[in-house]
Amino acid sequence: MTQSGRGGGPQLLRLMNCAAVLQAVRDTGSARLADVVRATGLSRPTVTAAVSTLIRDGWVEETEAPEDDSPRMGRPAKVVRFRADAAHVVGVDVGPHKVYCAVADLAGNVVVQERRDVAEPASHAGLLEHVESTVSLVLDRAGVERSAIAAVGVGTPGIVDERRGAIVQAPSVPGWAALELGRTLQRTIACPVYVENDVNLAVVAERANGSWDEADDMVLVQWGARVGAAVLLQGRLHRGANGAAGEIGFIDLEEQPQGTQADGLGPLEAVTGTAQILRRARELGDRTSHDAVAVLHAAAAGDPLALQVLDEVAAEFARGLAPFLTAIDPALVVIGGGITLAGDAILAAVRRHLEQRALVVPRLELSSLGDDAVALGAVRLALDHAERQLLDVYSPPGTRRDR
Amino acid sequence: MTQSGRGGGPQLLRLMNCAAVLQAVRDTGSARLADVVRATGLSRPTVTAAVSTLIRDGWVEETEAPEDDSPRMGRPAKVVRFRADAAHVVGVDVGPHKVYCAVADLAGNVVVQERRDVAEPASHAGLLEHVESTVSLVLDRAGVERSAIAAVGVGTPGIVDERRGAIVQAPSVPGWAALELGRTLQRTIACPVYVENDVNLAVVAERANGSWDEADDMVLVQWGARVGAAVLLQGRLHRGANGAAGEIGFIDLEEQPQGTQADGLGPLEAVTGTAQILRRARELGDRTSHDAVAVLHAAAAGDPLALQVLDEVAAEFARGLAPFLTAIDPALVVIGGGITLAGDAILAAVRRHLEQRALVVPRLELSSLGDDAVALGAVRLALDHAERQLLDVYSPPGTRRDR
Repeated sequence: MTQSGRGGGPQLLRLMNCAAVLQAVRDTGSARLADVVRATGLSRPTVTAAVSTLIRDGWVEETEAPEDDSPRMGRPAKVVRFRADAAHVVGVDVGPHKVYCAVADLAGNVVVQERRDVAEPASHAGLLEHVESTVSLVLDRAGVERSAIAAVGVGTPGIVDERRGAIVQAPSVPGWAALELGRTLQRTIACPVYVENDVNLAVVAERANGSWDEADDMVLVQWGARVGAAVLLQGRLHRGANGAAGEIGFIDLEEQPQGTQADGLGPLEAVTGTAQILRRARELGDRTSHDAVAVLHAAAAGDPLALQVLDEVAAEFARGLAPFLTAIDPALVVIGGGITLAGDAILAAVRRHLEQRALVVPRLELSSLGDDAVALGAVRLALDHAERQLLDVYSPPGTRRDR
Repeated sequence: MTQSGRGGGPQLLRLMNCAAVLQAVRDTGSARLADVVRATGLSRPTVTAAVSTLIRDGWVEETEAPEDDSPRMGRPAKVVRFRADAAHVVGVDVGPHKVYCAVADLAGNVVVQERRDVAEPASHAGLLEHVESTVSLVLDRAGVERSAIAAVGVGTPGIVDERRGAIVQAPSVPGWAALELGRTLQRTIACPVYVENDVNLAVVAERANGSWDEADDMVLVQWGARVGAAVLLQGRLHRGANGAAGEIGFIDLEEQPQGTQADGLGPLEAVTGTAQILRRARELGDRTSHDAVAVLHAAAAGDPLALQVLDEVAAEFARGLAPFLTAIDPALVVIGGGITLAGDAILAAVRRHLEQRALVVPRLELSSLGDDAVALGAVRLALDHAERQLLDVYSPPGTRRDR
């Protein structure tokens, strides 16, 4: 970051003061003028001028201090409030079986969300259409203009080159690999689009919204039709040298390598995913369950047949998870995805099998976010970029951080 | 760290100046007085006084500038040189089959090293005696008094609590677990002893002495009688929540968990270690090899039977390594230990099998340090602590970093 000394002068200073005031108000949500003066170290007239500019541009508003505030002499103090609704972001969770969109304001409050199930694994063109129509739908419902969208975050299966917004490898969605997803969506949605692996986004959301603050080294496993994992080390996402860290569903344990299956599933997913859960339940004589959801609910209710199925897939899962955990020895493993419908029964089964295989067994917990995790992580990804853009509006040329 | 303001005065300042001068001379190896003045920002008389103290205490010496230096007018310039031989450190690599000791000066130059093979897996008392007698031997040979040892670093198999210097779990050495190794050795050797997992030390040495500077995310596998790994992420050792990261030898792949074998080997070590290599060679009709070393040499020379054995163990090794790598997606995997006697043949075999199992295959290389890696890492561990102690001599009370 370089700061140009030339061409600066009073205009440059005014921009920088606006950015400083905006940051101070943004950090607290709302603040008295005196608090902003203290936080920024600027003079009162300078802060007053900056606030006027920010009000004119729509980023902050001035309100009376709430009545329950400490009583004061004289006229009521003014409070400067960050307008979280000055712009919005969109988080998208796109997978072969669903599109899930959430619209949030600049404070991260989700105002509208919508999940659409996609019956058949669609082509990438079909999936893209679903994404675009679902984004349109949620924006309409939220009453948010496209021009007021600051950024879009997208979570997708596969190995993502997050600098290019491109999917490098994604065996689960035909035609999805090598797709310039970010660039393609950007053309229709007409605002910056940031793409990240879906489970990577889920672990970020899990850490931010979940109750695992103490676990700096944690693994999140998303376990449903597919099985993927993401790794957080020292509180930060570990992507790996090729962005491929955590692709647990493709762990290949047998003496003869199995490779990716005909249906696109990785070897471990094939023997632990929801398709296998339904298949095994039927093999064992379950005549009533129409889908894996029913089997998982039955397991949660203590049904012996369903619990046997759960035990079998947990055994295979632990067989793949144990060597994976050996590499990092995390403090916590959080299990999310459809499998969590089985509740504590799945934790107990995985723990039982891990104890037979691993030198040390980490704390195991169920996800606190469930189905929302990826979309919430995508909202957070979009917010990170939106915040930078927001401050960039008031940054002098040559100091912008995110272009 | 607090700095006491009271009881300070001129004496306190003199100590701090000595520490600053020592640090400056230590960093460069040798320096002209003028260079030290520049580096420390102290006045010339202050530096001269500090140098006198450091000469008196034996940490530096004054010599004439080397003749090939740039010519100068007047009398030849004096050079202050750090006395790397003012104290020494000892690095120890202790395992069930060997004790390896190295004595190094404060610049890290190894002056004497000695390896002793231990025929039978010894009891912990027996192993401790081997360590103590080998330390005595190398000190005698180096002509170094025990009182001149600044620190001892020890690498050991097992999961180490490095703050206590205790071994938490070590299935490979009977009675070794729960041993307060650091404290026990400290009693006999009478200087600070620091203990760390052996493979963790090897990866630190590999990064410092090897030629992998570009690989911030790397895995070192030590593969001999035992198989262990250590993980370096962002250039730093990743120990895990329980210090258990990297215990690859205990990966348990079969549908029925195998657990630790009767001989103390973990499931993956049992089917890939040197004992298995010799056993398989004999089963396949090798009548001449007396040990695994001979089989590995034969493989390096292209012997078909030995290459078949190598291929079999590489297949099993890749089967365990692939899920391990899935967790971190490192840029580089370095293979060290006895297996490297097979040369590039082992790299080729592991690569071939990894390619059948892993979504991405990292760069694979042979260790550049071989058998010395753990002892060199132990020397480095001791040096880190010795350097802090060295500077602590001249630090005012209350500011010492390593007690």
